[in-house]
Amino acid sequence: MSLNIIDNIEHLLPVAGIRLGAVAAGIRYENRTDLSLIEINPEASVAAVFTQNAFCAAPVSIAKKHLAAGTPRYLLINAGNANAGTGQPGVDNAMACCEAVAGQAQCQAYQVLPFSTGVMGEDIPLEKFTQVIPKLVNTIDAHHWHSVARAIMTTDTVPKGVSCQVTIGNDVVTITGVAKGVGMIRPNMATLLAYIATDANIEKSLLDNCLHQAVEQSFNRITVDGDTSTNDACVLIATGQSMATIGKPGLSEFQAALNTVCEVLARALVKDGEGATKLINIRVSGGKDEIECKEVAYTVAHSPLVKTAFFASDPNWGRILAAVGRTEVDNLDVSKIRIYLDEVCIVEQGARAKTYNEELGQLVMDKTEITVSIDLARGNAETHIWTCDFSYDYVRINAEYRS
Amino acid sequence: MSLNIIDNIEHLLPVAGIRLGAVAAGIRYENRTDLSLIEINPEASVAAVFTQNAFCAAPVSIAKKHLAAGTPRYLLINAGNANAGTGQPGVDNAMACCEAVAGQAQCQAYQVLPFSTGVMGEDIPLEKFTQVIPKLVNTIDAHHWHSVARAIMTTDTVPKGVSCQVTIGNDVVTITGVAKGVGMIRPNMATLLAYIATDANIEKSLLDNCLHQAVEQSFNRITVDGDTSTNDACVLIATGQSMATIGKPGLSEFQAALNTVCEVLARALVKDGEGATKLINIRVSGGKDEIECKEVAYTVAHSPLVKTAFFASDPNWGRILAAVGRTEVDNLDVSKIRIYLDEVCIVEQGARAKTYNEELGQLVMDKTEITVSIDLARGNAETHIWTCDFSYDYVRINAEYRS
Repeated sequence: MSLNIIDNIEHLLPVAGIRLGAVAAGIRYENRTDLSLIEINPEASVAAVFTQNAFCAAPVSIAKKHLAAGTPRYLLINAGNANAGTGQPGVDNAMACCEAVAGQAQCQAYQVLPFSTGVMGEDIPLEKFTQVIPKLVNTIDAHHWHSVARAIMTTDTVPKGVSCQVTIGNDVVTITGVAKGVGMIRPNMATLLAYIATDANIEKSLLDNCLHQAVEQSFNRITVDGDTSTNDACVLIATGQSMATIGKPGLSEFQAALNTVCEVLARALVKDGEGATKLINIRVSGGKDEIECKEVAYTVAHSPLVKTAFFASDPNWGRILAAVGRTEVDNLDVSKIRIYLDEVCIVEQGARAKTYNEELGQLVMDKTEITVSIDLARGNAETHIWTCDFSYDYVRINAEYRS
Repeated sequence: MSLNIIDNIEHLLPVAGIRLGAVAAGIRYENRTDLSLIEINPEASVAAVFTQNAFCAAPVSIAKKHLAAGTPRYLLINAGNANAGTGQPGVDNAMACCEAVAGQAQCQAYQVLPFSTGVMGEDIPLEKFTQVIPKLVNTIDAHHWHSVARAIMTTDTVPKGVSCQVTIGNDVVTITGVAKGVGMIRPNMATLLAYIATDANIEKSLLDNCLHQAVEQSFNRITVDGDTSTNDACVLIATGQSMATIGKPGLSEFQAALNTVCEVLARALVKDGEGATKLINIRVSGGKDEIECKEVAYTVAHSPLVKTAFFASDPNWGRILAAVGRTEVDNLDVSKIRIYLDEVCIVEQGARAKTYNEELGQLVMDKTEITVSIDLARGNAETHIWTCDFSYDYVRINAEYRS
């Protein structure tokens, strides 16, 4: 199977059946687009996953309800205001936005899914939405994936998008996706905002499965700061406009292509993590089950001491060892655990590896993409996650964000 | 019951039966004391708790073994090198230090408990220890608590110590303690380094109980960065040199005084947390059990987004709400949860409290000691912990620490 990957944001491939675009509504930012609309053809299947945060935002609760009521025709996405922690007024406002789109586009309000990202706890400026929605509905076209990738950004520094083409049988299937989110990132059963479309024809329940599988090994394996957002959502649309129908035949190829798209987007989010200078891949093997592998991986990934050592390019491997040692995994035999920076063994028999020296560690630490491998040597389970380092700029960005 | 508290480091009270002191061994730092010795009278009882980190340091494993073998006569404590992640050579080195003290002080090596704090993964410079141990043994006296408080510091910016006197029956009991540790701080069943002595007469098993109780509600309730050290240890010595014998009578007074000493020291550690500018007390009430209260409290305390908002004095309460929402507590009813900054209600009915405005929040956020109260409204359990904010300086300190 060969995949054709396009990760140049300016050359994302259109997906037949999808029109989209963005306008500047002035919700929070001056002089930038911040309100996006994605139109979905009536024949499409749509799957979505949402945040598990108990304080989920108003648009998340409405999007879930609307998705259960039927196949959506429009996704309305704003940046600058999360409409989270806003109680019943927030729900009313999100609903009013859906109705504004429905009125202009001549569909039902339940066919519109709302999504918001930005500052929490403030009411959205409803008038600014309703004023520009007519213009927004009239400006969408097939080629504006890059505009939407930009308009959904908050503290992101670069837009994230990828297209992938895969040949299934005799047909070429296209998948294009965009995503945002570089802070309050530890997705749980969902991701930050990600919108992915394919022209393949896939019925809803199969599409749900495909999305869950792809999300589980991509967006659900990244963490910037351990904080799970109130607004996470990931939507997958199958427009059915290509010749390819995915059933049992073609499923593995389609899943592989979708996984690749999700992984490229997820890695791009972590790489642009707030203040991040390095992308860290943490691999844990030799666990009794995947749960304990994840516990070890996330403990290392969330350790502020490990993250600041990576920022300083300091092979201070004792911090990794201490983080592994404090995990809630019973009866770890530290004399058997091995820890590696890329290919360099740094820890064995409870101490610095005999073959290790500081120069070897420094060579790895100076890279911008680093793999930490931890072998627990007590079973066959494994997992891997991506994270980033922790810099002055993380503090600056989050100390200044609202001001 | 009245407690006399002395928290001026220069005026800590001597404890009859204890002599102590510190010298400069040049282990890592130039021109500062870094090696301390505490001598314990032969009649004393000694209790201790240690880190639960699976990668516990060599001195921790030896101290545990020696404590099990009999009542210790000496505690040897060095700063600058943690002797952690050093395997069997680390154990041999720590043992050699004990033997050096035993040779000079004419006791058995098992009567010496070693403690280390500092950089991990490097062998200790054994010769520097053995060279100065004779001088160290000869310079101890009853009045050097302040010297030890200084000599055990690593990234601490101020020495921490407190004395407390309590009248039990007709006798005045004195308790004096010192502690260090402002990074890699989320103690688990123990604390960083803390040494506490009392002149009361208490038998070992009762003393163990007293220490566990006190630690559980003081050192085990603080977190700077969520990282549990490899070297944590807390030692409580009862010299029995006062007239007071603590059994059932006097126990509650003694426990209260000991709790106070531990709480003062624990709060001082968090207040001096690496880069910290604010002390945050997180109180969670209305939980089904204490476990879920702790889960909520630590999730909020470890959220980098909450911590940077406190650093910025930004009443960005949405971040607290999001942290509560992502906890692993099932079936939270967010419409019932109330969140307060000091006395100001910020969240109710899933949204900003009706009585809240930004000015009220700002007044609280501008303080240097702040209480966050979270009422889960689903039971009667409660807990509280202390943490600190997250600043540029945390990153600077931990990016520069080894260089």
